[in-house]
Amino acid sequence: MPFSWFRRPRLSFDAPRLRPRREKKYGVAADLAEIAPELRQFLGQAACVQLGSFERLSALVADVPGFAPKEAIGRAAARAFARHQALVDELKHLGADPEREMTPFIASLERFGAATAGHDWTERTLGAHICGGLLDDLFAALARGVASDGVKDLPALFAVDPADGHALEQLLKESLAGNAQLAARLAMWGRRLVGDTLLVARSALRLTGDAEADDPHTEPLFAEVIAAHTRRMDALGLTA
Amino acid sequence: MPFSWFRRPRLSFDAPRLRPRREKKYGVAADLAEIAPELRQFLGQAACVQLGSFERLSALVADVPGFAPKEAIGRAAARAFARHQALVDELKHLGADPEREMTPFIASLERFGAATAGHDWTERTLGAHICGGLLDDLFAALARGVASDGVKDLPALFAVDPADGHALEQLLKESLAGNAQLAARLAMWGRRLVGDTLLVARSALRLTGDAEADDPHTEPLFAEVIAAHTRRMDALGLTA
Repeated sequence: MPFSWFRRPRLSFDAPRLRPRREKKYGVAADLAEIAPELRQFLGQAACVQLGSFERLSALVADVPGFAPKEAIGRAAARAFARHQALVDELKHLGADPEREMTPFIASLERFGAATAGHDWTERTLGAHICGGLLDDLFAALARGVASDGVKDLPALFAVDPADGHALEQLLKESLAGNAQLAARLAMWGRRLVGDTLLVARSALRLTGDAEADDPHTEPLFAEVIAAHTRRMDALGLTA
Repeated sequence: MPFSWFRRPRLSFDAPRLRPRREKKYGVAADLAEIAPELRQFLGQAACVQLGSFERLSALVADVPGFAPKEAIGRAAARAFARHQALVDELKHLGADPEREMTPFIASLERFGAATAGHDWTERTLGAHICGGLLDDLFAALARGVASDGVKDLPALFAVDPADGHALEQLLKESLAGNAQLAARLAMWGRRLVGDTLLVARSALRLTGDAEADDPHTEPLFAEVIAAHTRRMDALGLTA
């Protein structure tokens, strides 16, 4: 899953946790610092999201046909769990209780998991690719903007191996080849997935009450996240 | 999961892959070298078993209640996948095709997985503890005896963090406390689990046709594996 869509060197901020909303802006980066939710809540939700990715990917291992995809998806699952663990460890390091910080997000992420569960392994593989890709992109972007007091290298916690998305894409491409009926079904399923995933994405921005879903500062962020999503669908030959 | 039940320093053998059965014996260690299956098949079956453990444990993460058990079982799942990967990598290193070596074992291990699936999270947790513990013990013991030409440190591939078994034991102890009805049900379930697991264990010894299930040389090995199983059940207050 490429993060190149942000196409600029990473900047760091000494942003206060809650900024007055009308403060002077310095481009997209400053906007991200503005809309970024409070650090602990951010880490708590991100840890929940990565645990959800682990559950989704690890269940796929038994589900998908073929040896190479199983191996690649198992590695992706292990890496999602490693990210989850790193976020939990970071919360502990900051003196926070990881369970307490994760708890507020569990019910909505479980609803999200159920809504995007899929009816067969092709739908579930697309789910892992589309939901995982979009949420990984979003949290990586937020990590570059969030006030990261006490965290040495917050964006590093969200680094994703491009091999993981590539493996899901390859598997989907192979099953889609020459199968117009499946393509039509998965295109529709992809639109359903992105709708549900954007609800989670918007909740990530609403954490502090500092940014609303229709806040103009969230626009560049959502535009980039959705552009990356569209590229993923395009690569599969599916209309986003 | 302790491996101390073997209670002697590890020895290495330059055993031929297929030994004549009536060759002179040098104690239990030599017996193990005798009954040990051919290396590639052994690694193929072991890789399958570890993939099964990963699937079992990772599914439990969503299943069990509480934050600490989820975290601990997730770590155990990630470690089972790492063992699986190390075995697959070793097969590649030896010039073997991992998929080909694993394929003969998939159907029977899937039947085993289905037979030991359990009806709720307590049965599934006992399943992970009892089946995983017994198979990890068995393969670690076989790894000490198998002719390991070309493999630098075969037993190291089977090293298990004792924290993994301990987490499952703790979770079961907490749910069993003062619940006689659950204890009766899980004791019965444990006997079912060990029966199914021993079928897998015996198939691991039958690989080369060099040892039968009733071979007298398998007796010390099975006695030790079953003793360790009994200790796990005892620790839970369940009759094995």
